[in-house]
Amino acid sequence: MVFQIGIGPNNRKSVYFDATVADGVACFSVYNHMFIPAHFGDPQAEYDALMTGVAMWDVAAQRQVEIAGPDAARLIQYLTTRDMRGAKVGQGRYVPICDHAGRLINDPVLLKLGDGRFWLSIADSDIELWASAIAAERGFDVEVHEPDVSPLAIQGPKAERVVADLFGDWVTELRYFGFRQTELRGIPLVLARSGWSKQGGFELYLQDGTRGAELWQMVKAAGTPYGIRPGAPNDLERIESGLVSYGADGRLQVNPCNPFEIGLGALVDFDKPEDFVGREALLRLRREGAARRRVSYVIEGAPIQGFEHGLPVLTGQGAPAGVLSEAVYSQRFGANIGVGMISTGIEETGESLYVEMAEGRRRVEPRAGFGAG
Amino acid sequence: MVFQIGIGPNNRKSVYFDATVADGVACFSVYNHMFIPAHFGDPQAEYDALMTGVAMWDVAAQRQVEIAGPDAARLIQYLTTRDMRGAKVGQGRYVPICDHAGRLINDPVLLKLGDGRFWLSIADSDIELWASAIAAERGFDVEVHEPDVSPLAIQGPKAERVVADLFGDWVTELRYFGFRQTELRGIPLVLARSGWSKQGGFELYLQDGTRGAELWQMVKAAGTPYGIRPGAPNDLERIESGLVSYGADGRLQVNPCNPFEIGLGALVDFDKPEDFVGREALLRLRREGAARRRVSYVIEGAPIQGFEHGLPVLTGQGAPAGVLSEAVYSQRFGANIGVGMISTGIEETGESLYVEMAEGRRRVEPRAGFGAG
Repeated sequence: MVFQIGIGPNNRKSVYFDATVADGVACFSVYNHMFIPAHFGDPQAEYDALMTGVAMWDVAAQRQVEIAGPDAARLIQYLTTRDMRGAKVGQGRYVPICDHAGRLINDPVLLKLGDGRFWLSIADSDIELWASAIAAERGFDVEVHEPDVSPLAIQGPKAERVVADLFGDWVTELRYFGFRQTELRGIPLVLARSGWSKQGGFELYLQDGTRGAELWQMVKAAGTPYGIRPGAPNDLERIESGLVSYGADGRLQVNPCNPFEIGLGALVDFDKPEDFVGREALLRLRREGAARRRVSYVIEGAPIQGFEHGLPVLTGQGAPAGVLSEAVYSQRFGANIGVGMISTGIEETGESLYVEMAEGRRRVEPRAGFGAG
Repeated sequence: MVFQIGIGPNNRKSVYFDATVADGVACFSVYNHMFIPAHFGDPQAEYDALMTGVAMWDVAAQRQVEIAGPDAARLIQYLTTRDMRGAKVGQGRYVPICDHAGRLINDPVLLKLGDGRFWLSIADSDIELWASAIAAERGFDVEVHEPDVSPLAIQGPKAERVVADLFGDWVTELRYFGFRQTELRGIPLVLARSGWSKQGGFELYLQDGTRGAELWQMVKAAGTPYGIRPGAPNDLERIESGLVSYGADGRLQVNPCNPFEIGLGALVDFDKPEDFVGREALLRLRREGAARRRVSYVIEGAPIQGFEHGLPVLTGQGAPAGVLSEAVYSQRFGANIGVGMISTGIEETGESLYVEMAEGRRRVEPRAGFGAG
């Protein structure tokens, strides 16, 4: 079914909002209290651009939480499960964040901009509120705030050519998650090799919200020779690639996950000398062993259209066996594919598993993944 | 312009979602990471039902943060600006919540369910994250979690009759914000005299998410003799009535407000014996005096259609003078009306004030309010 979205002041407009409207955005979602394009009316062409060409996405809703001041590095070390002592200016890192009970509450990329200045480039939860409360309660000498930063993603195999044409050939030397403070015709931005796809690409962290439309047009013009088109973070590609989506795969209030369940256990550094949020709970969870783990699924039957929310995975007798968080039909794999969780030990029983969809029961089969793109 | 909303697992469905779809919901917004109906296709009829009859709203997105345990009262006292020592089981209270810098981060109604059990019925920000971090950092012996509770609002002058027919005449004795744990044909719920309008009414805090459709149908059936119709929290009525909307009027990341600016200074109880979050900052803010204050506006010109986001209020010379957060045409007052902020001292100058809208500059005039309904 198709419903309208209420565009009003309850949620924010991105600095690229008007540009995406001019370029034909058809559907929005809301992420971090901000409107984010969901598609521009031609999902197949948008997927193709990402897979074989180049796509540009308004991902301003991926907000930054800036942590700056004398205790910034100390606070970062306390907030994340990773040991950040070796973090380098100019090299981003994927950093799970857990609450005091060891449950994942966000999975940002951390950008170290200077010795006392960091950005957490966040998924969809109010980390600014959470981090500032902890900083204040611990008496850390830091400022926690949301700066004027609006990422624009350029993704796909031809992204590098577009970005090299805009910034110069030095961009080809950026490693994955590498970034540099730079500018484009006077527009200040951080250029990073990153983005929420496995097709390669860059994110332009625009640092002047008044120049969103201008940056959008510059990227569009530079991408035109390569067939660039506007799109959005792509659910089909992310399921094919196995990317985590905090919010869709689970959030604190719905299907909360710990890092061991979700396959991020290697990013919990119990060896770091400092304490960190959730350490005690995570030690216990590790000792107990995960009761379930993240898995890919193949779902039988006709191509799935518009999977709207997570469903329990059940045994033939209707006993709970996991969850199917999101599912989609993949032409590339010729199958309905999804991501979710499976209870420990279920696979060993060899039992058939099912989900109840509107049109009836469908069999689902767990898989390790669908291979790299 | 009209855009589609992406219905996917990134945001949650309310337990009333399917019922609202069956009853013709046309437009959704997102609130607390959940889809919330915005209208059912006939805003005028929905407004009329609220003002002269009775309306039913899916407000499940008004989530509860439950705080329970031996230190629950202590934590509540620390989290809110009000002195909650006198709080009574069965009597709700409107409780501003500020961060450590004294900025409003939510404005829930607090329901004391028992001596060691409270709900914060929250506006749109992740208070569960924030409150659980503070509880853990301070070592309070409490559980902070989101229970399975989904409010359904019944609002309008005939709401009491509908609710009395459902629950019995005792409901007429509930005071404003008074509530009682009860049930309806075995469905557990908290019934409260409350709701986000000034037209009177009740909220049914459903405590069993599997019975959302059933409760929706029962309310609808009971309301049919009174002409009940589905609707949604009504922006026109809230602006006419001067209700605060955390998120639309400002949020931590956009136009952050302190309680003195927003007219909630009387709800900051500096006299309470315990410390509370933001106390020091709020003392300083009170001493300094508010640089601006909440105000209503009349906006000249043709009826405003679809006001999409906050605008700066400017003097004739273009100097900043405030903000217009939301505006709408009110037939009742025969004028465009809005809410926002005005800088201290501007009114005394007698200067004309303006906002720049898509169609050009419009004059705006501050008002104390538009009178009670």
